[in-house]
Amino acid sequence: MLNREYEGQDRCGVAKTLEIVGERWTLLIVRDAFFGLRRFEEFQSSLGIARNVLTDRLNRLVDEGIFDRVLYSERPERFEYRLTPKGRDLTVALNALREWGERHVVEDPPRVLRRRSDRKPVTVALVPRGTKTLKPNEVELVPRLA
Amino acid sequence: MLNREYEGQDRCGVAKTLEIVGERWTLLIVRDAFFGLRRFEEFQSSLGIARNVLTDRLNRLVDEGIFDRVLYSERPERFEYRLTPKGRDLTVALNALREWGERHVVEDPPRVLRRRSDRKPVTVALVPRGTKTLKPNEVELVPRLA
Repeated sequence: MLNREYEGQDRCGVAKTLEIVGERWTLLIVRDAFFGLRRFEEFQSSLGIARNVLTDRLNRLVDEGIFDRVLYSERPERFEYRLTPKGRDLTVALNALREWGERHVVEDPPRVLRRRSDRKPVTVALVPRGTKTLKPNEVELVPRLA
Repeated sequence: MLNREYEGQDRCGVAKTLEIVGERWTLLIVRDAFFGLRRFEEFQSSLGIARNVLTDRLNRLVDEGIFDRVLYSERPERFEYRLTPKGRDLTVALNALREWGERHVVEDPPRVLRRRSDRKPVTVALVPRGTKTLKPNEVELVPRLA
């Protein structure tokens, strides 16, 4: 695809991240993977996007090491897409985008992020290095009234 | 512009945020505003993008309440663009994207985020609500060897 890259922005972490996950739909596919979706038909049904666009985005996410493509059926040959550690590490950025939207745009957010161990609400924030923080696998995004 | 919206994703904070700042170049314009850029020519020179694209993105950022458009010269009539509080609140999300890029893609990040008061390094992280966190105006992104 033309113009996916941001020329002259090679050392900017924002630009380099957007080159990988900044295309339309890509971050919503990753979001759905955090919700447990793995298969082409699941993503297609969740997002309602054109199949060729979904194919393109999934291939790129595999190429970039954000998804592993794993065979789950031999006849017919079928693959599913699983987040790699690099993909799971997008937890912080995705939740930061979600929280901004919930503060400024969404009226009635359907989910809440909480710590698995004690269900305490979790937020994404600026903290001095050395502050005790949570790892992606210590949190879960659950329906608000669960 | 067609297809900027994500239909059926009305209550998702990620989708709603990307509808506002997910277009190509938009988050890099906001990043540059955090670096102190305010004027059309400054953004154009920093990003090297087509003027009509920059005009479109700036207008949309004003419409969405992320920039205020402020007259700074009457003859000729000239405007500059200043982050609103809603815009400044993108600090967390932008720095989360930057940090992911710096962990996984960028080899030699040019800047470091630190607390203004004591220059202690700052990171974006998942924390239990109630943790002492920093506000956007308490941090600054500065050249790494400053």
